[in-house]
Amino acid sequence: MPVVSYKGISRSEVRMDGVSLTTKAAVIGPDEGWGENAMRVFRIAPGGNTPSHQHDWEHVNHVISGKGTLTIGDETFELSEKDFAFVPPNTMHQFRNPNDEDFEFICIVPKRGA
Amino acid sequence: MPVVSYKGISRSEVRMDGVSLTTKAAVIGPDEGWGENAMRVFRIAPGGNTPSHQHDWEHVNHVISGKGTLTIGDETFELSEKDFAFVPPNTMHQFRNPNDEDFEFICIVPKRGA
Repeated sequence: MPVVSYKGISRSEVRMDGVSLTTKAAVIGPDEGWGENAMRVFRIAPGGNTPSHQHDWEHVNHVISGKGTLTIGDETFELSEKDFAFVPPNTMHQFRNPNDEDFEFICIVPKRGA
Repeated sequence: MPVVSYKGISRSEVRMDGVSLTTKAAVIGPDEGWGENAMRVFRIAPGGNTPSHQHDWEHVNHVISGKGTLTIGDETFELSEKDFAFVPPNTMHQFRNPNDEDFEFICIVPKRGA
């Protein structure tokens, strides 16, 4: 099925050291025919965050709704609805939601990072 | 700069046989460090469409705002805000906006298709 309805995506809690109040849904990846990459949707509830960590692959992001922050190295950026971001490989990074509504964004990774 | 503000993206008219009322903005690609792919934003005004064509690379899509249709082969799908789509390589496809508001979506391609 080439179309994935946003309303139908299946979210599961992210269980990982340093994660708080975050769910993840896989939307398009190798199973849909995108051989080398995976598009996922993360939703961070108010007060939540992803871990501060690094790995040898990049993230390509787009904010679906809400707003939050993205720390890359020692810089912190504000992300608002519809903004885009690129997190380089091998760089410490963390998404946080210090606001009072959900912060939801696309995160694309190569398949080895999915 | 790892963050690209949606408000600041630079759009240009798509000039190509079979295109109508469509702009394109490059947001994240090889210049930003994403070596193998490019994320672009297309905006089709009411009544507009992309060409009905095919090529040997895929499209990965996400609807930023509005709604429209995506024809893949001989099937036409309705796309609404926040939905996702995958257009396989070597398959005829066309996006159309038969509605009264802009239809805007992300389109990711490998760099040879950018």
